[in-house]
Amino acid sequence: MSFDIIRSGRAVLHVKDLEKSRKFYDALGFIETESDKEQIFLRGLEEHNHHSLLLKKKAEPALEVISYKVRSEADLDHLAAKLEQDGYEVKWIDQQKALGRAFRYQDVSGLPVEFYATMDTVDRKLQQYDLYKGAKVQRIDHFNCMVPDVEAAQNYYMKELGFACSEYTAGEEDKVWASWLHRKPSVHDVAFMNGEGPRLHHVGFWLKDPMSLIDGCDVLASLGYGPNIERGPGRHGLSNAFFLYLRDPDGHRIELYNGDYLTSDPDFKPIRWDLDDPMRQTFWGHEAPDCWFEEATEVLHVHNEEKVELKAAKLKKRKPTFVI
Amino acid sequence: MSFDIIRSGRAVLHVKDLEKSRKFYDALGFIETESDKEQIFLRGLEEHNHHSLLLKKKAEPALEVISYKVRSEADLDHLAAKLEQDGYEVKWIDQQKALGRAFRYQDVSGLPVEFYATMDTVDRKLQQYDLYKGAKVQRIDHFNCMVPDVEAAQNYYMKELGFACSEYTAGEEDKVWASWLHRKPSVHDVAFMNGEGPRLHHVGFWLKDPMSLIDGCDVLASLGYGPNIERGPGRHGLSNAFFLYLRDPDGHRIELYNGDYLTSDPDFKPIRWDLDDPMRQTFWGHEAPDCWFEEATEVLHVHNEEKVELKAAKLKKRKPTFVI
Amino acid sequence: MSFDIIRSGRAVLHVKDLEKSRKFYDALGFIETESDKEQIFLRGLEEHNHHSLLLKKKAEPALEVISYKVRSEADLDHLAAKLEQDGYEVKWIDQQKALGRAFRYQDVSGLPVEFYATMDTVDRKLQQYDLYKGAKVQRIDHFNCMVPDVEAAQNYYMKELGFACSEYTAGEEDKVWASWLHRKPSVHDVAFMNGEGPRLHHVGFWLKDPMSLIDGCDVLASLGYGPNIERGPGRHGLSNAFFLYLRDPDGHRIELYNGDYLTSDPDFKPIRWDLDDPMRQTFWGHEAPDCWFEEATEVLHVHNEEKVELKAAKLKKRKPTFVI
Amino acid sequence: MSFDIIRSGRAVLHVKDLEKSRKFYDALGFIETESDKEQIFLRGLEEHNHHSLLLKKKAEPALEVISYKVRSEADLDHLAAKLEQDGYEVKWIDQQKALGRAFRYQDVSGLPVEFYATMDTVDRKLQQYDLYKGAKVQRIDHFNCMVPDVEAAQNYYMKELGFACSEYTAGEEDKVWASWLHRKPSVHDVAFMNGEGPRLHHVGFWLKDPMSLIDGCDVLASLGYGPNIERGPGRHGLSNAFFLYLRDPDGHRIELYNGDYLTSDPDFKPIRWDLDDPMRQTFWGHEAPDCWFEEATEVLHVHNEEKVELKAAKLKKRKPTFVI
Repeated sequence: MSFDIIRSGRAVLHVKDLEKSRKFYDALGFIETESDKEQIFLRGLEEHNHHSLLLKKKAEPALEVISYKVRSEADLDHLAAKLEQDGYEVKWIDQQKALGRAFRYQDVSGLPVEFYATMDTVDRKLQQYDLYKGAKVQRIDHFNCMVPDVEAAQNYYMKELGFACSEYTAGEEDKVWASWLHRKPSVHDVAFMNGEGPRLHHVGFWLKDPMSLIDGCDVLASLGYGPNIERGPGRHGLSNAFFLYLRDPDGHRIELYNGDYLTSDPDFKPIRWDLDDPMRQTFWGHEAPDCWFEEATEVLHVHNEEKVELKAAKLKKRKPTFVI
Repeated sequence: MSFDIIRSGRAVLHVKDLEKSRKFYDALGFIETESDKEQIFLRGLEEHNHHSLLLKKKAEPALEVISYKVRSEADLDHLAAKLEQDGYEVKWIDQQKALGRAFRYQDVSGLPVEFYATMDTVDRKLQQYDLYKGAKVQRIDHFNCMVPDVEAAQNYYMKELGFACSEYTAGEEDKVWASWLHRKPSVHDVAFMNGEGPRLHHVGFWLKDPMSLIDGCDVLASLGYGPNIERGPGRHGLSNAFFLYLRDPDGHRIELYNGDYLTSDPDFKPIRWDLDDPMRQTFWGHEAPDCWFEEATEVLHVHNEEKVELKAAKLKKRKPTFVI
Repeated sequence: MSFDIIRSGRAVLHVKDLEKSRKFYDALGFIETESDKEQIFLRGLEEHNHHSLLLKKKAEPALEVISYKVRSEADLDHLAAKLEQDGYEVKWIDQQKALGRAFRYQDVSGLPVEFYATMDTVDRKLQQYDLYKGAKVQRIDHFNCMVPDVEAAQNYYMKELGFACSEYTAGEEDKVWASWLHRKPSVHDVAFMNGEGPRLHHVGFWLKDPMSLIDGCDVLASLGYGPNIERGPGRHGLSNAFFLYLRDPDGHRIELYNGDYLTSDPDFKPIRWDLDDPMRQTFWGHEAPDCWFEEATEVLHVHNEEKVELKAAKLKKRKPTFVI
Repeated sequence: MSFDIIRSGRAVLHVKDLEKSRKFYDALGFIETESDKEQIFLRGLEEHNHHSLLLKKKAEPALEVISYKVRSEADLDHLAAKLEQDGYEVKWIDQQKALGRAFRYQDVSGLPVEFYATMDTVDRKLQQYDLYKGAKVQRIDHFNCMVPDVEAAQNYYMKELGFACSEYTAGEEDKVWASWLHRKPSVHDVAFMNGEGPRLHHVGFWLKDPMSLIDGCDVLASLGYGPNIERGPGRHGLSNAFFLYLRDPDGHRIELYNGDYLTSDPDFKPIRWDLDDPMRQTFWGHEAPDCWFEEATEVLHVHNEEKVELKAAKLKKRKPTFVI
């Protein structure tokens, strides 16, 4: 391929009350790079790029876009050309704060997706341990999206965009119910699962160790965010991660995540999980609450900023226990 | 008082299949001191006494007795005399394996309770880290019992037996719904809570740190015991402990427990929790499953080994969210 | 005995620069209860008493006194009478900030020791996890003192004051080189070891888990206190504790400590370590730096506040590898 | 470039007593894939390839070769052609156990280096937590080598082989004293430092979290391997890793390693450390023992299996405090 997508880069979320959001993400341990009356730029402790989470003050909560970083400006141009060739309408956006040239498009599932090659660099806080607090969020790890047709999404990302599959869930007649895809050599940069969509299920952030997750729970509870803990802590069978799911003040779901494995080898064979394997979802055997299956963030059109209409899942509706 | 109860000492549980039980408790990290066809003697890694958990093969699961250690043989005699004076029928038992003189009686709530002064000593495994596995159980910590009249139980244990209260839950009209009582300076050696009883809710074992609990979950799940994890991991508001509840192959409930605090000070004032405080039960805000509230181990008469008849809880039936 | 010593209670240290000390202990995670121009009162996160470490601004660093808490005012009077009967000169001190009636005396080794029954109570911070930082110091644990005649000290504390021995080190001809003594059921409230003295080797503070110690190292290093880390992290053979030794800005030594065991049983036999056992000092086999053996805090007379003259150790001088 | 080196793959070490080595690496938590009288094949818990450490029984301890995995057989051929074009003599080796086609050569520093594209795959043990023990070694991470001319090594690996630099140490006149180079997006697959060489300083293995390292120390000490712990645990300034250095029964040095960061971004600028920065070597400020600076494993010629003659370091001899 003539382009190299490096990794998941950032999510742009719409929130209704910046101050409420600031307090929540501060409690979690994010670093605020900068902010004004309209937006807050957040990053993890090891991140040397300006932000991995951008919160914009808007009337309604929504996902504006999820963004991937590519290797160079040339890669960006090649990728845009390829997508246009495949029939997608590409929208170049100039002068985003801290970001270089970027373009957006509505992907195969209707998700708002952005690519960029450069973002301003800032000082890492990796070794300023006196700034560590809450769950000590280290860096962005992945996006998880509910889409009506997982196989279509998986096919496009693997065959056309160069993603590799680490693990997947197969249901009746061996249909793919969910798929974990990566560019950086971790379990995923993005996961797709069968469901009414397109919607953003959650954004995952990497923690340095399991105790940071426990510490995060304690600090959140102390500050009154106990009700924001939706699921976990627990161990996923799929991905092997130690996890916690949180709902931010607008209901956006954040996953704290530690413990997957290196996927750099080309001879690594995707791991197949059966939809009915109880250890797939939670290795320790717990069930997730219904809200976790049903609720997700609606997404916007990149061209008109209106909400993308939801489509029913292609596969028979069934409790999508494969979501992680 | 003329007697000194040192601490909770052991529980004697009836189980239906010794081999199934052996595998479960071995996975948890208990040390098997010895066993024969009728019974298994288990202890934690730091324990220098012969056992803290005795499993006996019987037709029906039940609690035979919970036992406390007293300071000396003289303390034992004084305590027996005091209980007889209070109208309790005391039954001396000789020649129990590894145990010195001991007596049993049915306590104020109808629970089968035993006292002893001496138990055989064995090598501690505290520093044989190569033997550590599973959740690396360190020592017995406490008993938790459901009783129909918590105030009656609390009063007798505090006023007549010398226990101190660390924390308690109060409901309507300030009635005590549950109470945590200790002799050793931890949060508890025994807790009583309002419920149909007398029944044993769980036996709590101390872990050395939070990661041992996480490791325990992973090992149990690897060995197929995922369904035995009933609740947690989580943080209790009451007691501050990081906890996990398990059900053994006979349904007996075991709590893995780490993180309470020192209660040696006479000026430590019992902490009052309101029955409706959502952080009391789980600091992080999670709800416990119904089975955790409703199911418990039935207990036997110390005189005839028959099951003690259950009485309804004295306080109005209400989801006893105060149980920990 | 007609008195009950509950536990080690506080240390009063003289420091030269309150602001330097404040920054150091704040980095470690102590809570400052209050302060003025002359002194700072510090406590751990779970402590419900006013302070466990009192720093006073003075011209020279020194230990003013180490203090134990007794059960009641009556215990205090009985203890004072007993000491006077044994020939010690007792000095009552009134109106110390936050402290009830107290008396001081120079103990059998010449150490300045204080007893009190009551100290003001304050809110615990145990469940305000948002205040946790540094090593998240939980509570005072023990004092460690270098004395010229360990056997004399051990004998008086065990036979006359009611302490129990958990572990000890024996050298040539089975002479006791060091001894760990407790009132609360942990490994120690005080330890004595053979050396030029009387001097205070260190004050030990309890941490909730091993990761708090690692976090403490990282935060201290980030704030420029790397050179203050004198020894560790490591595991003691004796006591089994995971430890770290720090030197405060005046050179006073602080131990961060996690992981000993319950010593409440009267049938627990003191553990004997041979002076030449390499695992006694550090279970993992590391050697301590020379400064750790040689340097310690000088102590004051309780009657005239002058430095107590040092005496040579009674046992042959030898690298006291038994100190922990 | 027409070839893609994926990652560090395995080390082949000569040892004198297979049984002694087996016990040591088993205590550390390695999985033994298979063995015979001449060799033992070891791997970490998450590794799906046959081995990452091969121990061969020989008369003298030595490094036979360090091996890197490339993307495909075509990459392997392109790389061999490129090296021959650069004047290196390449030696193809057939029929190594579990390995596909491979070739070896003596690299720019005289180190014996091997490349291969395929190795047999085996079951991962990642989720068989009941097999976890010791330090629970997860996977190979990096090689660290002492070479006489670091700049020459760094230049060849970066310009000719496609490695990227994450961090480096600069001394007088800005000369590079040590350099950390990676292909997979971690801090390094290989590091070179100024010293008498070529020698192998250590092989680094990845752990899943800091507690695994502490657990490893405890288990090693319990089994009598305390003296094999050479340095640590501690935090490196350079790389940010939580580390432990061990010496195996033949003196080969193993690093247990957790906690570096993602280096996938092309805009990540190499971090420069000054040779005199005390936090570079150990973030917490500890000094390493002399043996750690001076002792290393000698390496063999790939063509005649004789020891490669050592050359003096090019830069002025100075305690190489930059080694990590």
